[in-house]
Amino acid sequence: MRKVYLDNAATTPVSDEVIESMVKNLKQTFGNPSSSHHFGREAKGQLEEARRKIATAIHAKPSQICFTSCGTESNNSVLKNAFQSLQIERILVSPIEHPSIHATIKEVAQDIEIVYLPIDKFGSILTDSLEKLLSEGNKKTLVSVMHANNEVGALNDIETICKISKKYNAFVHSDMVQTMGHLPLNMEALGIDFVAASAHKFHGPKGVGFLYIKNPNCLKPFISGGSQERGMRSGTENMASIIGMSVALEHAVKNIADDEAYVNNLRKSMAEKLGNTILDIEIITNLENSLYTVLTIGFPEIMSNDMLTFQLDMKGIACSSGSACSSGANKGSHVLEALNYPKERKAIRFSFSKFNKMDEIEYAVEKIVELYTETVK
Amino acid sequence: MRKVYLDNAATTPVSDEVIESMVKNLKQTFGNPSSSHHFGREAKGQLEEARRKIATAIHAKPSQICFTSCGTESNNSVLKNAFQSLQIERILVSPIEHPSIHATIKEVAQDIEIVYLPIDKFGSILTDSLEKLLSEGNKKTLVSVMHANNEVGALNDIETICKISKKYNAFVHSDMVQTMGHLPLNMEALGIDFVAASAHKFHGPKGVGFLYIKNPNCLKPFISGGSQERGMRSGTENMASIIGMSVALEHAVKNIADDEAYVNNLRKSMAEKLGNTILDIEIITNLENSLYTVLTIGFPEIMSNDMLTFQLDMKGIACSSGSACSSGANKGSHVLEALNYPKERKAIRFSFSKFNKMDEIEYAVEKIVELYTETVK
Repeated sequence: MRKVYLDNAATTPVSDEVIESMVKNLKQTFGNPSSSHHFGREAKGQLEEARRKIATAIHAKPSQICFTSCGTESNNSVLKNAFQSLQIERILVSPIEHPSIHATIKEVAQDIEIVYLPIDKFGSILTDSLEKLLSEGNKKTLVSVMHANNEVGALNDIETICKISKKYNAFVHSDMVQTMGHLPLNMEALGIDFVAASAHKFHGPKGVGFLYIKNPNCLKPFISGGSQERGMRSGTENMASIIGMSVALEHAVKNIADDEAYVNNLRKSMAEKLGNTILDIEIITNLENSLYTVLTIGFPEIMSNDMLTFQLDMKGIACSSGSACSSGANKGSHVLEALNYPKERKAIRFSFSKFNKMDEIEYAVEKIVELYTETVK
Repeated sequence: MRKVYLDNAATTPVSDEVIESMVKNLKQTFGNPSSSHHFGREAKGQLEEARRKIATAIHAKPSQICFTSCGTESNNSVLKNAFQSLQIERILVSPIEHPSIHATIKEVAQDIEIVYLPIDKFGSILTDSLEKLLSEGNKKTLVSVMHANNEVGALNDIETICKISKKYNAFVHSDMVQTMGHLPLNMEALGIDFVAASAHKFHGPKGVGFLYIKNPNCLKPFISGGSQERGMRSGTENMASIIGMSVALEHAVKNIADDEAYVNNLRKSMAEKLGNTILDIEIITNLENSLYTVLTIGFPEIMSNDMLTFQLDMKGIACSSGSACSSGANKGSHVLEALNYPKERKAIRFSFSKFNKMDEIEYAVEKIVELYTETVK
């Protein structure tokens, strides 16, 4: 049976040029970049070339890029150490962050004031409320707001958030796992302090990510040991994956405008086709202010049951309810709950990449309509 | 110029079958193993197959294997959480552990008694002293002893260490980064609590490792977030690298006796040839009780200078002074210091793998003798 992958917010296919670059490294340059001999220096050269590529792609300095094993590690690296290293007394955080933010804050912030920022009905934080909160106290504050929400695609105005936060000397951390490689990003212009990213969301391999740090070494290392990553992160570097990530990001950024137009068109088409065919369908994602890769749809009550994603999977459509990270947890989405979305209507996230074709969208719509017809019959 | 790689304790070449398995995964199975649809289940199947392979190789249960990004992360995962999760009051540790042990203990063990275990002149801990220490107090104790030292190859009698420790209800953690895949290991028989391993030391890729945990979930997760690795480690799994690691370990274990005989012969040959040719050379590694991949040699004073590894590198011989992890740090080796090795004699580690050939050893010896002759001239 035909399989259509519409779960690109969970992970993306690895592109051919990425695999090629990884194989080349695995076959030819096996040295440990910390070794001082020929083999080590060759590896070190490739490692720093990858760092330079990534820095260039997001308008940062190479020294501000610290390689990690994933977005979750990047987020942990900031949140588990910022309170102590930066004397943070308060954290202002969006209520619909990824579990790697909420679980980590809950774990470490016993002595910290945690304030959840108000959001609009689509999931974007209200910047006026942020400013009000920042202006009220004089506690040293860390603002942690994701760039785009992983479940509904809601975008936060990170530029304004950074501007306001800087005005009140607050630090800003952003989980940009969903937007990295998909939206143009300029770290220097933003003046942001910490950004987390993960390669497998932009056609790189799984198990590698990075942390942008405005002031390198302002945090004590999360993983202690050797002096890798200029003392910011210990452990032998994941050479092949780091190189793959740098190629993935370089390609993503080069074609960002074309890819956005292309993918946005797929999304628009799917939203329109479904909206025109199935009565009582609801587009949860705000199509005017969201990441173009995500389309979250509320299904009619009659179709809504815990087996809906399974039923779609049986028809060859891979999509998601909630984030992949907590899909095993089998509990309701904290994002939809925060958006007050009615529990009796099942929400499904379809997410796209440049590798999806329009005929896949047509096929998916056909199968969803088929399921709808079978259900209402 | 010919290049001979004799730094396999720093990292090893990735074997062809490992690269093949990684490419296959990268090309064919890109799903997120946490996704519940077809693509996710396929990935999950491969992930669990890799876990089963690794568990089988070391006589453990699959549920006892937790994938990490490296040996250093594995060590951090234990040491940063054991004190709290297991109410540890005292840690008994070898003075010549890897930096990921010493740096981490120093960082987290403020309220813990740290006791450095006495070692013999080759670097192996004295098990009688361990027993004496354990019998004296009744503080809840964690014993952390590496299986083989990375700089001089000294082996610890991990079987006896586990036996003694269990007698006194102490937990045992061992950094087995150097021995995993090189010596037969049976976790069940050892009854050990925690073991750290890293794929790139046994011809797997860099940036992936695992932690063996006797009682899964007895520690709170080091990286918080989603519920991956059955709640033991958050972050999307490094699929390709994990699969590569499982293939590497499976192969290593299958051929372990032949590889040991082969590599040991290379080492013996190099030790003999150098010993027979260069006056006043000293074999620091105890050839009777050490990991067969490591040969650390003390060079005559006349050859000893900070440029010695560089001089050897210029002649095409890749070797190491101290561990790669701290090679950038440019300070003396804490291992050689603990062994009271005289500072005026430079120690160089040559380390071998199954991919080295006897003619490489001959070439290396020839070049070392050449350098010696140039120096004494």
